[in-house]
Amino acid sequence: MNPTRIRDLRISVGRLPTGKYNKITDVPGVRVGHATLDTDRQKTGITVVLPAEGNLFTHPLTAACHVINGYGKSAGLMQMQELGTLESPIVLTGTLNVGKMHDALVSYTVERCAAEGKLCRSVNPVVGETNDGTLSVGSDRPADKTHLDAAIAAACTDFAEGDVGAGKGTVCMGLKGGIGSASRVMELGERRFTLGVLVQTNFGCVENLRIDGLPVGEAVVDMLREEAARDARRKTDAITEQDDIGSIMIVVGTDLPVSELQLTRILRRATVGLARTGSYIGHGSGDVVIGFTTANRRGEDGTFRTVELLCDGQLETAFTAVAECVEEAIYNSMIAADTVTGFNGRDTVTVRALNEFLPEALERARAKVGG
Amino acid sequence: MNPTRIRDLRISVGRLPTGKYNKITDVPGVRVGHATLDTDRQKTGITVVLPAEGNLFTHPLTAACHVINGYGKSAGLMQMQELGTLESPIVLTGTLNVGKMHDALVSYTVERCAAEGKLCRSVNPVVGETNDGTLSVGSDRPADKTHLDAAIAAACTDFAEGDVGAGKGTVCMGLKGGIGSASRVMELGERRFTLGVLVQTNFGCVENLRIDGLPVGEAVVDMLREEAARDARRKTDAITEQDDIGSIMIVVGTDLPVSELQLTRILRRATVGLARTGSYIGHGSGDVVIGFTTANRRGEDGTFRTVELLCDGQLETAFTAVAECVEEAIYNSMIAADTVTGFNGRDTVTVRALNEFLPEALERARAKVGG
Amino acid sequence: MNPTRIRDLRISVGRLPTGKYNKITDVPGVRVGHATLDTDRQKTGITVVLPAEGNLFTHPLTAACHVINGYGKSAGLMQMQELGTLESPIVLTGTLNVGKMHDALVSYTVERCAAEGKLCRSVNPVVGETNDGTLSVGSDRPADKTHLDAAIAAACTDFAEGDVGAGKGTVCMGLKGGIGSASRVMELGERRFTLGVLVQTNFGCVENLRIDGLPVGEAVVDMLREEAARDARRKTDAITEQDDIGSIMIVVGTDLPVSELQLTRILRRATVGLARTGSYIGHGSGDVVIGFTTANRRGEDGTFRTVELLCDGQLETAFTAVAECVEEAIYNSMIAADTVTGFNGRDTVTVRALNEFLPEALERARAKVGG
Amino acid sequence: MNPTRIRDLRISVGRLPTGKYNKITDVPGVRVGHATLDTDRQKTGITVVLPAEGNLFTHPLTAACHVINGYGKSAGLMQMQELGTLESPIVLTGTLNVGKMHDALVSYTVERCAAEGKLCRSVNPVVGETNDGTLSVGSDRPADKTHLDAAIAAACTDFAEGDVGAGKGTVCMGLKGGIGSASRVMELGERRFTLGVLVQTNFGCVENLRIDGLPVGEAVVDMLREEAARDARRKTDAITEQDDIGSIMIVVGTDLPVSELQLTRILRRATVGLARTGSYIGHGSGDVVIGFTTANRRGEDGTFRTVELLCDGQLETAFTAVAECVEEAIYNSMIAADTVTGFNGRDTVTVRALNEFLPEALERARAKVGG
Repeated sequence: MNPTRIRDLRISVGRLPTGKYNKITDVPGVRVGHATLDTDRQKTGITVVLPAEGNLFTHPLTAACHVINGYGKSAGLMQMQELGTLESPIVLTGTLNVGKMHDALVSYTVERCAAEGKLCRSVNPVVGETNDGTLSVGSDRPADKTHLDAAIAAACTDFAEGDVGAGKGTVCMGLKGGIGSASRVMELGERRFTLGVLVQTNFGCVENLRIDGLPVGEAVVDMLREEAARDARRKTDAITEQDDIGSIMIVVGTDLPVSELQLTRILRRATVGLARTGSYIGHGSGDVVIGFTTANRRGEDGTFRTVELLCDGQLETAFTAVAECVEEAIYNSMIAADTVTGFNGRDTVTVRALNEFLPEALERARAKVGG
Repeated sequence: MNPTRIRDLRISVGRLPTGKYNKITDVPGVRVGHATLDTDRQKTGITVVLPAEGNLFTHPLTAACHVINGYGKSAGLMQMQELGTLESPIVLTGTLNVGKMHDALVSYTVERCAAEGKLCRSVNPVVGETNDGTLSVGSDRPADKTHLDAAIAAACTDFAEGDVGAGKGTVCMGLKGGIGSASRVMELGERRFTLGVLVQTNFGCVENLRIDGLPVGEAVVDMLREEAARDARRKTDAITEQDDIGSIMIVVGTDLPVSELQLTRILRRATVGLARTGSYIGHGSGDVVIGFTTANRRGEDGTFRTVELLCDGQLETAFTAVAECVEEAIYNSMIAADTVTGFNGRDTVTVRALNEFLPEALERARAKVGG
Repeated sequence: MNPTRIRDLRISVGRLPTGKYNKITDVPGVRVGHATLDTDRQKTGITVVLPAEGNLFTHPLTAACHVINGYGKSAGLMQMQELGTLESPIVLTGTLNVGKMHDALVSYTVERCAAEGKLCRSVNPVVGETNDGTLSVGSDRPADKTHLDAAIAAACTDFAEGDVGAGKGTVCMGLKGGIGSASRVMELGERRFTLGVLVQTNFGCVENLRIDGLPVGEAVVDMLREEAARDARRKTDAITEQDDIGSIMIVVGTDLPVSELQLTRILRRATVGLARTGSYIGHGSGDVVIGFTTANRRGEDGTFRTVELLCDGQLETAFTAVAECVEEAIYNSMIAADTVTGFNGRDTVTVRALNEFLPEALERARAKVGG
Repeated sequence: MNPTRIRDLRISVGRLPTGKYNKITDVPGVRVGHATLDTDRQKTGITVVLPAEGNLFTHPLTAACHVINGYGKSAGLMQMQELGTLESPIVLTGTLNVGKMHDALVSYTVERCAAEGKLCRSVNPVVGETNDGTLSVGSDRPADKTHLDAAIAAACTDFAEGDVGAGKGTVCMGLKGGIGSASRVMELGERRFTLGVLVQTNFGCVENLRIDGLPVGEAVVDMLREEAARDARRKTDAITEQDDIGSIMIVVGTDLPVSELQLTRILRRATVGLARTGSYIGHGSGDVVIGFTTANRRGEDGTFRTVELLCDGQLETAFTAVAECVEEAIYNSMIAADTVTGFNGRDTVTVRALNEFLPEALERARAKVGG
């Protein structure tokens, strides 16, 4: 059977222990749901991160974001930066679909509040995106409120990775990308906390792919050349399309009791994990980190509130955790994905799964450096 | 006849000369169009700023933005900050309508490119908003692509101000706000440049309103109290609703040859004009400045481009210009507006025009300080 | 007798009540000290804000800063932004003296820690500056550790304003600037809090000076012209030097229990007060706001800490307070200052006090608008 | 003979070609000089980057900076961000010495201008630092203007790396750090450009050290354990001191014709190279990137200036170049350094050179992954 996660290949990223599922949903209260659109013209979908139970609009979470490279169309970041709060589920989707998902989240919140007898006259929907236009006709924009409802209804803790939901049509390092996740558990002051990451991967060039430091991408390139020498008709479209026009969305959840400023500092370390997989943070990449903590949740506004905060000297472990999780979640997004053939409005394109090249590429990479 | 602009009251803001119309459209190539929705449930609409002729997606402008207070839902700012470019018209609308206008701008750009035989797989729509939910049922979200098309078709240089387009339902300083504009002309190096501003005003409390330094808001409050003493039934709903939950969108256009960094610095001076009208930049306010220059327009990507830039020492005049324009545009947005009665889903509300209190409030304010 | 504060002229800025001294030292624990250098070549000095009792290095305060315009040389802002803490007194001085005061604060902290048996291997000195080179030979850099010690020894609650300390040689609006202060008291949840501001004023052009909205600067210009007509030899050097090359340092202290993010948002409203006095935030101006709260002071690092925080909806009063304080502190810095004659290395220059023109300029300004 | 650069070990970082010296001085006009203090109490010094010939104050360069983690005391960043210019040499030193070097740069600029008959009343000195307090008594602050003069006099193109200048006392990954450099050459539009990097390394933990993806740090830890088993008296102080309290200063120079915004985007990619060496960007780290381009140099202010700019689509190569250079420069800083024994005011400490463990640690690391 194919490996579906990097640890199936006996590669452990970093040193911190993982949570139960090694997914963002190890953070208590977090659930993830997908709605996948898989038709001739569409390899797309949405992925929803539900950061906590209950009404997020009336009881928002402490949140933050960090823009690694802002060539992207995410919605809702400005208010998150100003107030340090998250008041809607986080929806990931394809680039041109952001407006429709923004509107769907407005409907969702208005309905949710109405069901509680509350009037919602304003809400800040948070939508992230990467461009799945290599495998899908993005301008069709088929995802709507029904898909949001379906994804929320399907939300669970042991959710699928790879070419599902908002990862159905993405391309990562010239191979099939998708949704991936990982988590780390931390002991601080004799208490146990979790930090988890979910990524939507759509960035980079195959030749740059590193797995745990090994030049696996170079090995894949070698294998492709040999394959082409054997069979000139073999399809390897996306792999040879070397423009780094992609993006990565990174969602970070935790139950650490951190301030908005501390959370922002944690999010900035996501770049470390991203860099280790081989990204140079391309010009055309929308690389965005959105994070929340379930600790110290806000209620309807009072005058004062009492919160517990981690002391700054304790942040080191969380910094390591987020870097490890991002690196591992990216690998998982690729290993869990199958080869996908789609249509982008002009051409039919096949993007191959990393799994087609494993475990051989890994062995070759080891041989390269192990000389 | 009622005054329709602050200069009709013989008040000149600042010292720089104005352009022909004293509107943002004095910047060559800029046009503005409205689509107004005026029904029992809707006092809303959209206002489109077309920053230049031609295809903005293939030939973007140098642009920047500045967030004065980020409690708002504007879309498209992240990429504008990253790249310093504007590749879509700027649409202003009501808060909950941002997603639909985002999607409409995607359609607009895809269609526009298709008409030129170009494929658009990604575009960064720029949408600003303030909350017109005092006079309109925002959750209906009636504005769609047809309104965008109508507003673009209607775009012209001598556009209307006041309670039109995205200003139909806004409330400024407890009185009727709306769309306002102003411009300034600068001579630099024996050449003539223009900077113009368009605002959508929806912020502040009546008692804080200052006009050219005069405490006109206090005079209005006095007049309201006297009126209430005369006639207890007189409607003054919005005026007495003192929460500063509003916002202001500020669009700045110019033909000055400035870099992204210089343009950002110009935009930061918008706060000066805003402060002089009496704003304290409320917590609940989404106060956002979006700016562009028509100089040094980008083409389809080459290797190098040659641009002319203003030297830093010459920026002073532009700094003054933007502050003067914002202050004057805010006054114009109020003076041009008529009293509007609307429904917000719960109550029927009347928001009164500043003009109902002029010129008396101005005279009273002068008497107050002229002691 | 001359007025020494704006309230002596029966002008009250804003609506909130002031603290006992109407100075930053109304915030419990805050003290301010000056060391003034007044020689033929030197009209300069330092002003120290001691934000709290005890060792700031081992027990830092929550702090933040906001750069209105960054053409300045302040030291220590980067770490304040990263950590949200203040670990040294705040020293204000002349531009070229920043390095020496930075070094003096290192000595101060090393000595202070040594006295407690603690080793200090790193400290982040916070130094603000404006350029007093109109009245002083800045390149002499005479202020050193002895002046820091003297200023700290002299620190008190009812400190002097005007042409003292770091305000000895500054020029504001073409007239003599200096040190000014103001405070506001807030009732929140039946508890009483204070916010205070101290400014070092060195910005702007005389013609733009507004006092509580009145065009006092224009009246001063008229008076100067009449004076020159009467007596051509009358010295008015600095007034006629209209380059806006100055700066303003704004220090904000409070005991409100706010987070780093909330404090930053408070500091951003300082621009409102600055704008109302007539500043256009000139290109050459280093306009910097440094703020701290004495609430929730940090101890030596533990694992968790429990803090009380103001709810966001309560910030409005603090936003108003900081704007009112900045505006009033600027007026106080000018009214408290006497006319000063100094030497800048090339010329002997006299900068005249606003008081030379009061109360007549105020009456003329009232007459101008009171028509 | 010991290797002195990573390429001596036949490891090439990345794919782009290097410049002649593979140092920042490959950028035409750039020179680097050191002044080293090597006494019983002092293992410290300064390193000066002279970014161009001529008077930097009257003819500044386009510049930018990027703060990866702001727990540091660098001076001069605020104005660089505001104006996008560099008007002084860049001095690197030890943490507590920033004030004295700031003051020395003021003297340098005043003297330089005086020699040209120009008055300098304000200058923005740029000083970076990391904390060399493990091997040196930082509070002594022995470096002064004479060392600045010496370093400038010694400036050349083929400068030394390792434990010299500002790198004399630094500790990187638990081993001896110091000054390192690298460069890359780019062909764009048939023209040739150079980008170079200089680092002062003082960050990280030995166990995390990766060289070109290989876990060399883990191999070093193994070797240390074996050594300790053989000889319990062997000194390995710093290596076992695992607090990540260090920092890295990264200086980037180029002759690419880029805008301030483009340069900032290039600098942000420095994190990629840093991450690949094993850094998690520790809480206590001041990780700062300062960059300049020698293209489009400013003159004394005119009205307009004409500049050539790289088109955005061409930035990709520069993004790769800076990441490659930072990674390689860090390795060079360690490989060029010798073992150093110093005194920190309490203890005598020996920090061992990476070279003591090479080439064995590299072979062991290869064996680990090459399984």
